[in-house]
Amino acid sequence: MDWKRRRTLSSGAVKRVAIVGGTHGNETNGVHLAKHFMRNPQLVKRSSFETEVILSNVAAIKQNTRYVEEDLNRCYLLADLQSEEKSKSSLERKRAREVDAVLGPKASESPRCDLVIDLHNTTAATGVALLMAPDDEFAHEIGHHLSTLDDSVRIVEWNDQPDWPLCPSVGRSGLTFEVGACPWGCLEPELFQRSRRLVSALLDYVDKHNALIANGKREEVTMKVYRSIGVSIDYPRSPDGDPVGHVHPELQGRDFKQLRDGDPLFMTFDGEEEKFDRKALKVPEKYDSVYALFVNEAAYYEKKVALMLMSCGEAKFSKLA
Amino acid sequence: MDWKRRRTLSSGAVKRVAIVGGTHGNETNGVHLAKHFMRNPQLVKRSSFETEVILSNVAAIKQNTRYVEEDLNRCYLLADLQSEEKSKSSLERKRAREVDAVLGPKASESPRCDLVIDLHNTTAATGVALLMAPDDEFAHEIGHHLSTLDDSVRIVEWNDQPDWPLCPSVGRSGLTFEVGACPWGCLEPELFQRSRRLVSALLDYVDKHNALIANGKREEVTMKVYRSIGVSIDYPRSPDGDPVGHVHPELQGRDFKQLRDGDPLFMTFDGEEEKFDRKALKVPEKYDSVYALFVNEAAYYEKKVALMLMSCGEAKFSKLA
Repeated sequence: MDWKRRRTLSSGAVKRVAIVGGTHGNETNGVHLAKHFMRNPQLVKRSSFETEVILSNVAAIKQNTRYVEEDLNRCYLLADLQSEEKSKSSLERKRAREVDAVLGPKASESPRCDLVIDLHNTTAATGVALLMAPDDEFAHEIGHHLSTLDDSVRIVEWNDQPDWPLCPSVGRSGLTFEVGACPWGCLEPELFQRSRRLVSALLDYVDKHNALIANGKREEVTMKVYRSIGVSIDYPRSPDGDPVGHVHPELQGRDFKQLRDGDPLFMTFDGEEEKFDRKALKVPEKYDSVYALFVNEAAYYEKKVALMLMSCGEAKFSKLA
Repeated sequence: MDWKRRRTLSSGAVKRVAIVGGTHGNETNGVHLAKHFMRNPQLVKRSSFETEVILSNVAAIKQNTRYVEEDLNRCYLLADLQSEEKSKSSLERKRAREVDAVLGPKASESPRCDLVIDLHNTTAATGVALLMAPDDEFAHEIGHHLSTLDDSVRIVEWNDQPDWPLCPSVGRSGLTFEVGACPWGCLEPELFQRSRRLVSALLDYVDKHNALIANGKREEVTMKVYRSIGVSIDYPRSPDGDPVGHVHPELQGRDFKQLRDGDPLFMTFDGEEEKFDRKALKVPEKYDSVYALFVNEAAYYEKKVALMLMSCGEAKFSKLA
C-alpha cells in the first residue's frame, strides 16, 4: 500500500468527514461530544462536505471501561484487518472491521472518509494534543489552524511507521484529539466546551479549504511539532510488578515539559526522589532536547508507560490561501 | 443492636486498627498506599496497639474497576451480612462477609477492630474529606487532630441512619479517607504523599490516646463539620438517560463551595447555563446555607448524582488531654 498516495492532499477536496467517539469507552468527554453531535446533526453539517458521527466501541461505552477484551485503538493495522482469524479473536477485533468498513476501508485507495477525527481523553495534562502521522499534510494544516485559535493546542507526530494501528488511519487523513487532564468516566467542563468549539472550528476550516481549491493560491507554513522518539519510561516497580513510586509531584500535570538530566522524575512511595537520567534511560544522543508526554495516563500503567519522550522540531508545509 | 454502645469511646483503649485499601478497585492511591503498608509493616506498627492492613475488593483491584458486580461499599448493612441468600448474590456480597469476619463481625458487640480506616479516592476535588458517623466520637477527635495538621482536611458526617452499609461500620469506630481529585487508575502524587503522612499521624495519635487513658484528663473541643442533608442533584439528561450537560466550569473542582440561589450549577453541552435553585431542588428550608460535595465524581453518574448538598455546623466533644 502506498500510504502517502492514499492521503487527502492539501490541494484536494474533502467530501466526507467522520467524527468518532468512544474508541475508548471510558473517555467520557469524547463519547458525549460525539453523542451531542449525533443528537444535533446541524452542528456538524457544512455545505461543501458530508459529516458522519459514529461511536466505535459501543460495548466498552456501555461498561464505562476503556475496552472489553483489548485496546480497539491498536486493532487497525491493515494486516490485522485483513486476517480472518485475527478479526474473530476479540470483540474489539470484530468491531474494528465494522468501523473500517464504514470509515475506510483501509485496504481501499479510495476510502469513504477523507478525514477522520477521533475524540480521546487522557488523565495526562495534555491540553488539546492533536496526534497525527508525520506525512499527513492535511492533518498538519488543520492542526496549525486550530493552534492559532487556542494556545493549549499542540501538534504531535505520533510515529513514522508506514502503517499504524489507530482508528484515524482507516480514512485518508485523520487526527486524534487527545484532550486532558480528564478522569475516566467524567465530563470535564472546560475541556468539553473547548473540544466542542475546536471541532466546530475544524469543520469550518475544512469548508473553507474546499472553497479555496478553485482559487489554487498557496502559502507556506512553519509550525512547532512534537515528535515521538520511541522512548517511554515505566514507573518504579516492585519485583511482583506493582508500582512502588509515582510521578514526581513537580512533573505531574506538566506534559510537554522539557526534561534535563537531574530533573525530578519519580518519587517512591516513601518520598525518595528519582531523577531523570538520559544515559540510564537510553535516550539516543541525537535528541538534544526531550519533552514529556502522557505523564501519568491511567491506561498506560498496564502498558508500563509512566510517560513518553518527544523531541520538538518544525514542520513546514503549504496550504491553500 | 445498640450501635452507640458498640463504639470505641473517647475514653477507651484501642487494641486493633485496620487499614483497608481497594474497597473500590480503581481508587488507585488508596490501593497502593495499603500495599505500601503491607510491604513495610513497620510503617504502621505502634507500641500500644496492633495494625492490620487488608485489601478488600481484590477482584475489582485486579480488573482496575470500581466493582465487579455491585458496589462493595454498599454491602455492609447488618441485615444484608446476616442474610444467607443475599450473601451469595454477588461476588461483592461474598467478599463483604469475609471482610466483616476479619474486621468485625458487625453482629458482635466486641468486634475485632476498634478503628477501621478505609482509603478511598474520588474524582471530586474533596482534598482530604474524612467521612464518619455523626455519633462516632473517636472518629471525630481523630478528624479534629488531622485537621490541625493539614488545611485540606475536612470533617463530613455522612448520615444519621442507625446502621450504614459502608466498610468502616463493621468495626467499632471508623472513618473513610475520601481523597481527591484523583482520576481512576492513577497515582496522584501530592494526594498519595499527603494520605501517607496523615495515616501515619493518625496512628501516632491513637498511640498517644492510649497513653493518655491512665491520666484521664479531658478537654473540650469544638470543630467545624459538614453534614449530609440527604439531597443530591443529578446531571441534566436527555429522555434516554444520557447526560446533556456537565457541571458548570465555575463549580467544577469547588467541593465545599456554598451554593446560593442563582449560582451557576450546570452547563448544557451547547454552553447554556443552569442555575442553582433551592426551591426547584426541594432543599428543606431549615438549611440556611448549603455546600456542594462530590462535585463530578465519576462513579456517581450511574447513581444519578452530580453533587450532594451538605449543611455546615459545629460538633462539640471531649477528648483525653
